[in-house]
Amino acid sequence: MTTAEKHTHNERKELKSLLVLGPPLCFPSFEAQNLHKYHFLKAFSSQLPLQQFLTKLNVDPSSIQALVCSPLRKVSAEVIQLLPSLRIIVTTSVGTDHIDLAECSYRGIQVVSVAECFADDVADMAVGLLIDVMWKISFADRLVRKWGHSMPVNLSSGSKLEGKRVGILGLGKIGGEVAKRLEAFGCRIMYNSRNQKPFVSYPFCSNVVELASKSDILVLSCSLNEQTRHIVNREVLLALGKDGIIINVGRGALIDEKELVRCLIEGKIGGAGLDVFENEPNVPKELFPLDNVVLSPHAAATTPDSFNAVYERQAECLEAFFFK
Amino acid sequence: MTTAEKHTHNERKELKSLLVLGPPLCFPSFEAQNLHKYHFLKAFSSQLPLQQFLTKLNVDPSSIQALVCSPLRKVSAEVIQLLPSLRIIVTTSVGTDHIDLAECSYRGIQVVSVAECFADDVADMAVGLLIDVMWKISFADRLVRKWGHSMPVNLSSGSKLEGKRVGILGLGKIGGEVAKRLEAFGCRIMYNSRNQKPFVSYPFCSNVVELASKSDILVLSCSLNEQTRHIVNREVLLALGKDGIIINVGRGALIDEKELVRCLIEGKIGGAGLDVFENEPNVPKELFPLDNVVLSPHAAATTPDSFNAVYERQAECLEAFFFK
Repeated sequence: MTTAEKHTHNERKELKSLLVLGPPLCFPSFEAQNLHKYHFLKAFSSQLPLQQFLTKLNVDPSSIQALVCSPLRKVSAEVIQLLPSLRIIVTTSVGTDHIDLAECSYRGIQVVSVAECFADDVADMAVGLLIDVMWKISFADRLVRKWGHSMPVNLSSGSKLEGKRVGILGLGKIGGEVAKRLEAFGCRIMYNSRNQKPFVSYPFCSNVVELASKSDILVLSCSLNEQTRHIVNREVLLALGKDGIIINVGRGALIDEKELVRCLIEGKIGGAGLDVFENEPNVPKELFPLDNVVLSPHAAATTPDSFNAVYERQAECLEAFFFK
Repeated sequence: MTTAEKHTHNERKELKSLLVLGPPLCFPSFEAQNLHKYHFLKAFSSQLPLQQFLTKLNVDPSSIQALVCSPLRKVSAEVIQLLPSLRIIVTTSVGTDHIDLAECSYRGIQVVSVAECFADDVADMAVGLLIDVMWKISFADRLVRKWGHSMPVNLSSGSKLEGKRVGILGLGKIGGEVAKRLEAFGCRIMYNSRNQKPFVSYPFCSNVVELASKSDILVLSCSLNEQTRHIVNREVLLALGKDGIIINVGRGALIDEKELVRCLIEGKIGGAGLDVFENEPNVPKELFPLDNVVLSPHAAATTPDSFNAVYERQAECLEAFFFK
């Protein structure tokens, strides 16, 4: 071992190991700011299975107490079982469906989402998709660019938001921010969630089919789990009806996507604004010719401001875990 | 004259003549509901110049006291001079730049806009265009449809609305509705208008260049007249700056369009959402390859709900003029 290597080795011994799976955008700046605290085990940069990756780095799996991740890579039961000392998982996403929560619960591992800061972004996107679908903005933009010299007139008309009944599925931080924004447009808000919220004045609707039947617009902002997978099925879509619009900024699998595609093609619902899809990165190709859908590539939580805020919270959270 | 013709002739004598130039969408329903009150002189349905049109119908121009119009046809000084008894012009548009207001003023003709109901629509569109530009929604939608099998990832990121400084040029009914909506997103509102408004708490900025330099986003919602034509010139655009976004839901000629195109191409401003253009229906073809613009074919005020509301107000207005 050279002197330089010894030096590095000694320094590393004092650093806390931090396993990083599937980092979100902007991770390098978090890394740069925390090199003095953590020894970053960047599994995302290797094609090797986790065990081989750690062996190659000469890292004892039982030395790892903390793991940070994003939805880009699954934290499966197998991954968790590899790490006998794991005590905390920090995810930079709002959703936690990429983490085996049952295994975490069984083994007493704390799972922390530091993504509250994304709520504003996702709510912006939800409202943007909604106005876009209702006013056919992307559709008209495509037409203007296609027609070239002279803009099209007499497009079928848009539809105003004022007075529209909006059913929000999942009134967490994101759903709340969506509601706040849409109230300013004169929309009437209702919601469904696991339980009725105290201190919330919007009408609660315990049944999703009933919520859809009472809504002009259905916004999905709940987390994905076994209870919510395909919570929007054919029955819910039919209840929303031929003029109804669905906006999904949660997870693709909240909707039975095949049924959604069928209902859109058959005109059983009026339109859809989708930031998420059931089998990302695949987007159902049947949607491409439709003018009443707006397709967004899971882009709702990507602002540098929010990533900075997320990394600040992640840093605080790890600081509290390791050093307080 | 046959009995039927006499009957029609007598009936018409009791009906008030109403000259209709350039009707907006949904006019037929207004006409159908008011056939018992008005003799509709539908100049818009004829290719003839107005004088010949009236001569052909055997209508004495001096019998016409009221005219309804939309921006689709100019009410020029020549048109007004043809109608010596004209006392009221009702337009279904927010803007009045298609009417020669100086001539109306000179001759004491009342000009009424019944388009307040469109304010919500136009404000919806302004916010929709803004989110679309900031989050690149139309751009991403085009990419997703183009790429086909798998959605693009790592698109350059969007930008959240929270905390953005929005300068509103023209804080009338539309500007006020835009402000109300954007406040719910956490934007900070400033404004410029002819005069500072009493009872408005947003900071007032008397100088447009200064407003632009203090704003991340500039929203144009003022009316077009000789004072506001090209109010957004190169100096204002440069003050807005390379990350600044401009939204125009007023009239195209509020902006020096050539300068706007140049600034967008040269990256002197960040992006634009345009519902109006200087020489409609022409859209500058230089904008078509740009990904930081959203192009909308003057589609902000086209909802059936709003047209119904506009026609109700138009009916009330004419009722008051003729019958009260």
